[in-house]
Amino acid sequence: MISPEKHNRMANAIRFLAIDAVEKANSGHPGMPMGCADVATVLFSRYLTFDPKNPLWPDRDRFVLSAGHGSMLLYALLYLTGYEDMTIEDIKQFRQMGAKTAGHPEYGHASGIETTTGPLGQGIANAVGMAIAEKKLANEFGSDLMSHYTYTLVGDGCLMEGISQEAISLAGHLKLNKLIVLWDDNGISIDGAISLADSTDQHARFRASGWNTLSVDGHNPEAIAAAIETAQKSDKPTMIACKTVIGFGSPNKAGTHKVHGSPLGAEEIAATRKALGWEEEAFVVPADVLDAWRLAGLRSTKTHKDWEARLAATAADKKAEFTRRFAGDLPGNFSTAIDDYKKKLAETKPTVATRKASEDALEIINGVLTETIGGSADLTGSNNTKTSQTKSITPDDFSGRYIHYGIREHGMAAAMNGIALHGGLIPYSGGFLIFSDYCRPSIRLAALMGIRVIHVLTHDSIGLGEDGPTHQPVEHMAALRAIPNLMMFRPADATETAECWQIALEHKNRPSGIALTRQNLIAARTDYEEKNLCSFGAYELVSASDAQVSIFASGSEVEIALKAQQMLTQKGISARVVSVPCFELFFEQPEAYRGAIIGSAPVNIGVEAGIRQGWDSLIGSDGTFIGMKSFGASAPYKELYQHFGITPEAVVAAAEAKLA
Amino acid sequence: MISPEKHNRMANAIRFLAIDAVEKANSGHPGMPMGCADVATVLFSRYLTFDPKNPLWPDRDRFVLSAGHGSMLLYALLYLTGYEDMTIEDIKQFRQMGAKTAGHPEYGHASGIETTTGPLGQGIANAVGMAIAEKKLANEFGSDLMSHYTYTLVGDGCLMEGISQEAISLAGHLKLNKLIVLWDDNGISIDGAISLADSTDQHARFRASGWNTLSVDGHNPEAIAAAIETAQKSDKPTMIACKTVIGFGSPNKAGTHKVHGSPLGAEEIAATRKALGWEEEAFVVPADVLDAWRLAGLRSTKTHKDWEARLAATAADKKAEFTRRFAGDLPGNFSTAIDDYKKKLAETKPTVATRKASEDALEIINGVLTETIGGSADLTGSNNTKTSQTKSITPDDFSGRYIHYGIREHGMAAAMNGIALHGGLIPYSGGFLIFSDYCRPSIRLAALMGIRVIHVLTHDSIGLGEDGPTHQPVEHMAALRAIPNLMMFRPADATETAECWQIALEHKNRPSGIALTRQNLIAARTDYEEKNLCSFGAYELVSASDAQVSIFASGSEVEIALKAQQMLTQKGISARVVSVPCFELFFEQPEAYRGAIIGSAPVNIGVEAGIRQGWDSLIGSDGTFIGMKSFGASAPYKELYQHFGITPEAVVAAAEAKLA
Repeated sequence: MISPEKHNRMANAIRFLAIDAVEKANSGHPGMPMGCADVATVLFSRYLTFDPKNPLWPDRDRFVLSAGHGSMLLYALLYLTGYEDMTIEDIKQFRQMGAKTAGHPEYGHASGIETTTGPLGQGIANAVGMAIAEKKLANEFGSDLMSHYTYTLVGDGCLMEGISQEAISLAGHLKLNKLIVLWDDNGISIDGAISLADSTDQHARFRASGWNTLSVDGHNPEAIAAAIETAQKSDKPTMIACKTVIGFGSPNKAGTHKVHGSPLGAEEIAATRKALGWEEEAFVVPADVLDAWRLAGLRSTKTHKDWEARLAATAADKKAEFTRRFAGDLPGNFSTAIDDYKKKLAETKPTVATRKASEDALEIINGVLTETIGGSADLTGSNNTKTSQTKSITPDDFSGRYIHYGIREHGMAAAMNGIALHGGLIPYSGGFLIFSDYCRPSIRLAALMGIRVIHVLTHDSIGLGEDGPTHQPVEHMAALRAIPNLMMFRPADATETAECWQIALEHKNRPSGIALTRQNLIAARTDYEEKNLCSFGAYELVSASDAQVSIFASGSEVEIALKAQQMLTQKGISARVVSVPCFELFFEQPEAYRGAIIGSAPVNIGVEAGIRQGWDSLIGSDGTFIGMKSFGASAPYKELYQHFGITPEAVVAAAEAKLA
Repeated sequence: MISPEKHNRMANAIRFLAIDAVEKANSGHPGMPMGCADVATVLFSRYLTFDPKNPLWPDRDRFVLSAGHGSMLLYALLYLTGYEDMTIEDIKQFRQMGAKTAGHPEYGHASGIETTTGPLGQGIANAVGMAIAEKKLANEFGSDLMSHYTYTLVGDGCLMEGISQEAISLAGHLKLNKLIVLWDDNGISIDGAISLADSTDQHARFRASGWNTLSVDGHNPEAIAAAIETAQKSDKPTMIACKTVIGFGSPNKAGTHKVHGSPLGAEEIAATRKALGWEEEAFVVPADVLDAWRLAGLRSTKTHKDWEARLAATAADKKAEFTRRFAGDLPGNFSTAIDDYKKKLAETKPTVATRKASEDALEIINGVLTETIGGSADLTGSNNTKTSQTKSITPDDFSGRYIHYGIREHGMAAAMNGIALHGGLIPYSGGFLIFSDYCRPSIRLAALMGIRVIHVLTHDSIGLGEDGPTHQPVEHMAALRAIPNLMMFRPADATETAECWQIALEHKNRPSGIALTRQNLIAARTDYEEKNLCSFGAYELVSASDAQVSIFASGSEVEIALKAQQMLTQKGISARVVSVPCFELFFEQPEAYRGAIIGSAPVNIGVEAGIRQGWDSLIGSDGTFIGMKSFGASAPYKELYQHFGITPEAVVAAAEAKLA
């Protein structure tokens, strides 16, 4: 039992670490940690199951600070509860170059940071993904190995962002009863009172999507505790509205937007110390308080030990599988399976849409990998993401491996991030390439975090035809290639599609997008190659001695490049073709390889049914680009290719013009 | 009074035009028009105030087909009600090259298409913007000139997208009582039953945000009519759930996802004709039905005439202002005001953050233009978008000119589109550049439609400092430049900021983004220039005879370029500096101008605190780029510039290395 007095001192330790760190950095957000200190203290000192000495324990409770600007709340908790890689020195380095304690929590910077947050609404959707993962793995491995809660602390901003509705409605639908949202209900945003911009009854809103909701005074520890206990027993996800005062304790700034994003200032800090009866100097946590916190950090040691004992007692096969899955390693037979499939493709040489080729590859992949969990944003039949192994998950049956995410691209992408962060599963899912715009913030965060999520992005150009410019990606390959660390693939045929899938799966620390066609494509690769040629990013598909023309193309335009090459050959013009399935991987190759692939033909031509931006790096700024310069149009796709001049004839004409 | 029999035939005319057009195109979505034909018939034949002979009448009711895949519903209505530019031939050309009748409704293709829809959820948020515009203009010009309803027909998909929550909560907060949402409650999405992915009680959800909600049988005309009449009288926005059967009338496919996105097929069409008692051949509307529809199209002729009479009787000043505003023309004194301001800046040469310079420019602009309506996604003090003229709009007082959009970037951007489409107002608003990702789908649609919305995007690089990589745009300038028709500005100082604002406002048919710094910048432009130099996209800021080095830079990096140029000069290396505030405008200049600006120095260097992508078009693929290659980091901004090597010294070193 923690006495009220002790609770207050523990909470104040958080408050002053936040106050002092923000003041020292002269930058940051003290208001939220001060306001949420009581809620966080109750959660971390009584309920959260975690082991600071073993931060990656798979069955720990997950805590997501969705309101990421309150990062000092999390850093303070990690330090106080005894995470070894979060020292008081780290706290003092808040927001400084190279510090673990970045402005917003950055996944990978320190243990206990379960996800990168800051862009609002992402954390709550990550938490939904984590809760999905827990429920799925509990179903698969049993509650002996997997049975934990997922908590997320969200602010008003998180709840105003549209992504939160996608997350809330998905979680309610799937009855994620072990998901508990703590809403920092402080009534304040940057512009002032929330009432300036919103009048939503959040309780009614959550309940409309099948949630349980509770209300508490966010500064009453016993009320908070009771609410958490009630939430833990719920058969629905629960939202606990914690009425708090932003900047709690600051005599002159509490309850106002002034305390949200600026240091308190020396004078107000002194007044706050006085008001809260905190006599310590900056960054000093009294021994009794630190002891109390460190004890809280040891609360789950036995729970963790018991879990380890259960794991040790688990049948060898199952244990090995569980361990492998959480290590993120693929099974040994994976590459063989892909290889066998590639051999088959070299024989059958299918003419097929790459979205269908992706389905075929997934049929192999999902047969070998038990950890994939598929889905689509209500485009299952168009994205071809469902295979024979992936029964649908339903609210009452998580034995499946396929999620009907609904028409919620953003919530889907953020949930996938949560699933990947949770561990034990590899999420992939489907949408139209054009709608990558709807989930771009989550894709970016996956790239920033370096996590393995795979986005199947079909209908990847004007090749989708009649749906027209609202559905035709033109700038999307360029826009996605612009995101650092993201691998954007655009395979040219079934073999390249299989190879791109293999690369995406084999990279533990990078997200991928795979752009796929609606329309059929011929087999560009006709011979079996042991090497994964796509792993080089670009490679020579057709070579030529003393080439006068190099044609570079990706995806569906490789077929056009191949035809153009044949036409040029007939005209006595020596030309080579380079397939470019992945820009990022190509530019990571050694210079010698890149030079050889770019080659030295006097004429370089790039072909892609998208904009030129980015292609200069391959074809040179004096190269010719055959692609799009505008939005698309609504018409049958073959007419569109003619209309926009993306044809073998156009490539040939460009080559001849340059050579003339 | 329209008899049940006549109503049915009128609705069936819509159904069969949709069925026949989709069948002929062998592509499209018949299910929604068939399901919503009754709702649309009631609305268009009894309530919608519009004049097909004067489609741009400012006080017409607005109708937004948010479920844009049901485009044939709209095209059929436009043809049937007598819009002259929508003929039966146009209907027959559905989804063909160059047709007005594109796969999804495209703004500008034909009269009566109030906005481009297709990407789900956009239309409902556009409608919110239109309703805001109506309420604002009614306040300003009086209900004699402005008093109309905004209707939008939305599907389940629209309501699952997160943007809809932002739109719904904003509309409820602002009490947009003349906004009426007709929800096509058919329980079906592409994957199958909605219950696969969602369990939300939409009534409860809307009511949680302050809406009135009603339920009707969507195939009972009198019930629909009664609901619309109730909604019209509400003091809140109203959502009418219209329970419909997707593909109504198709004996074997109605009520299933099979009728959503594919032609019915000849056999099922014959069966549907039989079931609905429709004997006509394809594309034939019987004369009595067409007459009834054309009469419906004439319903508001007198209302419109009366309105014209009221406009004619309006005081000359007010009338001129109203007319000018709806023509989208700026007042004659606008350019003089900007010019005077530029003269002042040439004297004061302020060192100022461009976000602050933007506020100063807006203070001038908002004083001259009565039509601007500002706002921010809860970053008013950071975006500097509020000026002395822009009092906040509140739910009960629309006399202001500033909208607290809340933390709803996506809803904000789509509402801005709606405001611009409505006419009479020029919307601008603010967010962080990084969060352009959150509203990218709406920015893209603004570019596709060619409408004047202006996004103030502050904190435009690592220059924002401590908030770290989640808040530091690195790839965003490239990603936004990739969108066709969007003008992305990145001004270097106060003068350029004023010029960029002028360009953005003077382009009626293009959206703009203005990327602005958090940190102070020196005045790059020190002399008054009558010409708007930014309108050339790029221009020589410092010239040099026989330049050995050309340095190209945008925004905050122009200061770095200028310092580097001075350092090079001291070393005896002749260098020039080109400021590049807008790529798009530069590449629209005549070749001679472009050639002169790019110049012929042996060394080209680009400097921008973002990624290289796109810069090769200026500096050549053999040029040197000083910028970002990765995500940013959390630290004070000056340290970040050092850390990432974006400094005058780095430019000088690069120049020397190339010249060596």
